[in-house]
Amino acid sequence: MAEKTAVQDVYPDDYSWCYGCGKLNDQGHQFKTRWNGELTETVYTPEPEHTAVPGFVYGGLIASLIDCHGTGSASLALHRKNGHEPGDGHEPPRFVTASLKVDFMKPTPHGTPLRAVGTMEEIHPKKWKVHTEVFAADILCVKGEVTAVVMPESFLKQIKTTSPS
Amino acid sequence: MAEKTAVQDVYPDDYSWCYGCGKLNDQGHQFKTRWNGELTETVYTPEPEHTAVPGFVYGGLIASLIDCHGTGSASLALHRKNGHEPGDGHEPPRFVTASLKVDFMKPTPHGTPLRAVGTMEEIHPKKWKVHTEVFAADILCVKGEVTAVVMPESFLKQIKTTSPS
Repeated sequence: MAEKTAVQDVYPDDYSWCYGCGKLNDQGHQFKTRWNGELTETVYTPEPEHTAVPGFVYGGLIASLIDCHGTGSASLALHRKNGHEPGDGHEPPRFVTASLKVDFMKPTPHGTPLRAVGTMEEIHPKKWKVHTEVFAADILCVKGEVTAVVMPESFLKQIKTTSPS
Repeated sequence: MAEKTAVQDVYPDDYSWCYGCGKLNDQGHQFKTRWNGELTETVYTPEPEHTAVPGFVYGGLIASLIDCHGTGSASLALHRKNGHEPGDGHEPPRFVTASLKVDFMKPTPHGTPLRAVGTMEEIHPKKWKVHTEVFAADILCVKGEVTAVVMPESFLKQIKTTSPS
């Protein structure tokens, strides 16, 4: 079975420069978020330099993972609500983060893939809350919550005037 | 007048590998947090690749700035409470982040230095809350809150066994 399409792979090019998850940002993390049943999943293996202290993953990287996993999950959820799946030829909606909350429950070991798993809650048609659990080697290390909103028109206009493409 | 010593410049080497603020992590951001009167300050200019969308700073980078600014500010506050200032020959205490909250109030423009300004609140002798405001060109764009705790002994022991130094 072919791997499911990641939502970030079908974001329009103008919105694909994110340092966390933009497919066109060569120097970024290129996080990829996909459906896994009714949950969403983003798997990422930290680079050697992504340490907090030796042996443990940097919290800011985990916050970044939760952030992009959150906006990606919200996009997947609204896209599915609209009757679409990534790769069906329809552009998914693009979200921005209104707020981010991260609880570091235990130190996250370095050297193993991290798996962010999300559940989505609709607050309003244009505002979704994504609850995320981050596992390292199946141990729950971090919990996160992202409130994501559909990218406002004013933001889109500003992007159009500054896009490198 | 000489520039004030940043707290990260006097963290012990074993705790200087943080991707956000470790002075020994060549590939990291090397955030530097200093006293500015009774407030703390971390100034950082995002790299060209640190974009969310073209023209705006990536939220995960801002979360990272708030995270390290938070632990650094807590360290400065407890160090001063103990009668010390960075550079006086005494090692500052090292904190870890228990939780992080970030409110993105408006898009943060790229291409200008970001200034994180912190106020510290003692919750408990080993637990501090740091309230941060992030300004871009004097415009308040993001608010953050970090709950930082003195690094637990168990964590220290694990570091000693995995340190690259």
